[in-house]
Amino acid sequence: MEELRIFAPATVANLSCGFDVLGCCLENVGDEMLIRKNDLREIRITKITGQELPLESDRNVAGVAVQALLKEARSTQGFDIEIDKKIKAGSGIGSSAASSAGAVYAVNKLLGEPFSKNELIKFAMEGERLASGNAHADNVAPALLGGFSLVKSYEPLEVLKLPSPPELRMVILHPLIEIKTRDSRAVIRQNVSLQKAIFQWGNLAALVSSLYTEDYALLGRSLKDEIIEPFRSILIPHFDKLKAIALENGALGFGISGSGPSVFAMCKGEENAENVRGKLEGFYADKNIAFELHLSKINTQGIKELS
Amino acid sequence: MEELRIFAPATVANLSCGFDVLGCCLENVGDEMLIRKNDLREIRITKITGQELPLESDRNVAGVAVQALLKEARSTQGFDIEIDKKIKAGSGIGSSAASSAGAVYAVNKLLGEPFSKNELIKFAMEGERLASGNAHADNVAPALLGGFSLVKSYEPLEVLKLPSPPELRMVILHPLIEIKTRDSRAVIRQNVSLQKAIFQWGNLAALVSSLYTEDYALLGRSLKDEIIEPFRSILIPHFDKLKAIALENGALGFGISGSGPSVFAMCKGEENAENVRGKLEGFYADKNIAFELHLSKINTQGIKELS
Repeated sequence: MEELRIFAPATVANLSCGFDVLGCCLENVGDEMLIRKNDLREIRITKITGQELPLESDRNVAGVAVQALLKEARSTQGFDIEIDKKIKAGSGIGSSAASSAGAVYAVNKLLGEPFSKNELIKFAMEGERLASGNAHADNVAPALLGGFSLVKSYEPLEVLKLPSPPELRMVILHPLIEIKTRDSRAVIRQNVSLQKAIFQWGNLAALVSSLYTEDYALLGRSLKDEIIEPFRSILIPHFDKLKAIALENGALGFGISGSGPSVFAMCKGEENAENVRGKLEGFYADKNIAFELHLSKINTQGIKELS
Repeated sequence: MEELRIFAPATVANLSCGFDVLGCCLENVGDEMLIRKNDLREIRITKITGQELPLESDRNVAGVAVQALLKEARSTQGFDIEIDKKIKAGSGIGSSAASSAGAVYAVNKLLGEPFSKNELIKFAMEGERLASGNAHADNVAPALLGGFSLVKSYEPLEVLKLPSPPELRMVILHPLIEIKTRDSRAVIRQNVSLQKAIFQWGNLAALVSSLYTEDYALLGRSLKDEIIEPFRSILIPHFDKLKAIALENGALGFGISGSGPSVFAMCKGEENAENVRGKLEGFYADKNIAFELHLSKINTQGIKELS
């Protein structure tokens, strides 16, 4: 195999009570990438469409992720990478993760799969390190594995794939504003009350249970975050009103995707998700803020190969 | 039915990363109770063997739990309660919870089951309030429901029963020392670092997953507690050494039961549990501290009716 065309999905990290550990993968929001072997023993980002991003492979998240993989594989094979970016940078739905995860997935495949999907996570994390200074796994893991990913621990890195109840739908509202990483980090308290931490882990434990038992109502009752959301939501225009609208219209839960500005409504069933999407759209329409809306199933496969 | 004889099991609360939310139920450690209707419209603790405990029903955990149940049931039926205490008070394996849970279970049955097992939890919690000043549910819930109980939240009270992998065994070592509630509370920090809280909820989420998938190795890797154990373990003689012995001999995990002084080793299979029990016994034998040892399956049923 000389080249591979793939779909690299968007992802939602920091899922409510699962801050820093739980993410999920989207079905119909993502980039397309073409990765092709070259004879130059080097990684070249040959084309990026849809967005202005660095073409130097040392400064591109896909480039550094592939370099990390090749180093561990002790391979001198070169690759050309084309990226058609459809996920906006800074959206909070894993734009950099899609590129990093997509690139290592394709390169691994073209090399004859020396690594498992789980082993690819640590290479893709190097892209995240370049993008944000923090080699986090909660976007690249669901992009690679699909479904819901639990980052149990970093030392050692251990990631679990959790089940995805089939009727789940994600409505994503992306207000086209910029939240500076500096600001989204600054608002987080580095100490929390034990009482709130217990509330958070009780909810996360129940959420994990609900994924196994497909108990949608319990999932909804568990999608709570009293530790991060109260502070980060301040940076998102009309967050409280959006949340109220989603919940009043039957969404299971509502929260911040990643570190924002995108927000998500998790819904049971297509019909409810369509309704919630319409209500959010109607509310935001006259707010003088440009926005995008997505409605997606949970993508249980992760990165997909395109014919 | 005029009377009921029951087995009221011991329980392990504060299971490592599940501090305050996760407990499990033991199979062969517990009290026996006999509850009989009387014609006096009052609750009488007619006999307690095995331990010195208050006979006044207002000062006895079983008495106040039954009173809470009868009040909500609007019943004036009276009951005589006999308790043969085999679980030592202050052991950290749910002595008061067994009496409270056992009493409300039997009374509910004798009244024709006006309440579900889940609904009985809140009445039994009144016994815990009397015993410790804190109406916690993480012992009474597993005593009533059996298996592993997750206390998702208190307002509203929501408790889930989680699956119990069949090969699990609990080895309990109870050093016969007294830890004052005041001391076990005083050592807990009321604020924790966000980083440690995230580590804790990542492990708890993985632990819940392991119960569903019967992944014993993952369960072992998840039984970690960096928030409470480092402080409370100081109150338990030779804790670090006991833990090292258990883990070196193949236990999945080791931690404090409740607020101590009992400690538990969770093991896979009878053979490993027997080995770990022997090693712990051998180590403690010359330490000039009296102790008891138990080895138990997980009791998936909770309270049992005796013929």
